[in-house]
Amino acid sequence: MQFTSEQRLDDGVLEREFTLGEIPGILWTPGSASAPAPLILVGHPGGLQMMYPRLVARARHAAAEGYAAATIELPGSGDRPRSAAAEQARADLRRALEAGEPVDDEIVDRLVLPLVDKAVPEWRAALDALLALPEIGGPVGYSGGVIAIGTRLAVVEPRISAALLFAGSFVPRTMFEEARQVTIPLQVLLQWDDEGNDRQLALDLFDAFGSKEKTLHANMGGHTGVPPFEGDAGNRFFARHLK
Amino acid sequence: MQFTSEQRLDDGVLEREFTLGEIPGILWTPGSASAPAPLILVGHPGGLQMMYPRLVARARHAAAEGYAAATIELPGSGDRPRSAAAEQARADLRRALEAGEPVDDEIVDRLVLPLVDKAVPEWRAALDALLALPEIGGPVGYSGGVIAIGTRLAVVEPRISAALLFAGSFVPRTMFEEARQVTIPLQVLLQWDDEGNDRQLALDLFDAFGSKEKTLHANMGGHTGVPPFEGDAGNRFFARHLK
Repeated sequence: MQFTSEQRLDDGVLEREFTLGEIPGILWTPGSASAPAPLILVGHPGGLQMMYPRLVARARHAAAEGYAAATIELPGSGDRPRSAAAEQARADLRRALEAGEPVDDEIVDRLVLPLVDKAVPEWRAALDALLALPEIGGPVGYSGGVIAIGTRLAVVEPRISAALLFAGSFVPRTMFEEARQVTIPLQVLLQWDDEGNDRQLALDLFDAFGSKEKTLHANMGGHTGVPPFEGDAGNRFFARHLK
Repeated sequence: MQFTSEQRLDDGVLEREFTLGEIPGILWTPGSASAPAPLILVGHPGGLQMMYPRLVARARHAAAEGYAAATIELPGSGDRPRSAAAEQARADLRRALEAGEPVDDEIVDRLVLPLVDKAVPEWRAALDALLALPEIGGPVGYSGGVIAIGTRLAVVEPRISAALLFAGSFVPRTMFEEARQVTIPLQVLLQWDDEGNDRQLALDLFDAFGSKEKTLHANMGGHTGVPPFEGDAGNRFFARHLK
């Protein structure tokens, strides 16, 4: 991991851009950390630059509670090389949604499975590098982003203690078996009228998670309408589980 | 309204039992109230004495945030006269649940509709009496109990500003039209594996509520397993809406 830039935000949070091999990322650490901070991995749908305003808002909210926060670019997003197959799958998904058609499982598989397969090892490598920094101590939470990535991470990465998942993107049906293997505490956000998602699939996925402690927070509105008070609810969820 | 007993609890909360005509009730007011307090009506499934430990816990939790809390006995519960028709309907519901059969709409109608028709005017009369006390100022929230009663109250009682509903009891399908007329902010609790309730019916009811701000909190476990952190989440919901 190489830091490429550094700035102090007005609330004292230290923001550092880094690269991990070819992968760009951002690390935010609280202004006044006395001990090594617990870490929240901040998920997103891809496109760090476009997502930056929302990512930095979430990171500052977490930093105010003493958490470090970090994110990396997804494969095929931002400045990273495109995959022709993923672009084709994305176009097929968009076409189905715009036509109001049911989304074929086959499209979801083509779009999401290669992304999960590629992204999850990258997030784990980022976690290795982040936890090697003296200012970051763990425990680690995962928050938001592509729910299939969060689900796989929750199964395979034992250093993640709790996950706040956003049921705002399609999950391949073949991954429901993985969902049953998740045992860490979960808080799952669902936008009731998400225009780019299937409500029943999200409810079925919530049902499938194997965790004994899992809570669904469903709110009104579309994909981008998650109410601001869910930021506080997320911090309280992590406060219960990242001790 | 006549006060019949009074005691100071160890956290300073003043607990007063009262009668409103034939109806027994309990009022809790914060120990250190400077201004007239906002009020939370504490719903329950009937049987004040049996429910007392949970009711007083909820009232103390609310009082710690500056709310007064009050409840009254339901028609046909506790020491109040039984209705033969309601007892029969309750027995029929229990039989269907124990046999694992689907619950006939007709049984739900017989059990719940007369209860709602009788209870709602009583809670409104209690509200008249409570708001006439100098130590209670409003605004008013409604919390928990029989969700059909909370739904009707949310429609017909303009003094209720926000409601925290527990989707833990059957709602007559004829009341879904009323649910569409609810416009106040709602937070709806659902126990995912409630043994005495129908999950899909509860999700359909949540969908039906007309409120622009409504949030569903679904947690694992059976009817009595609502996690303690939902008490805090409830207080924060009311803090947003009872200003």
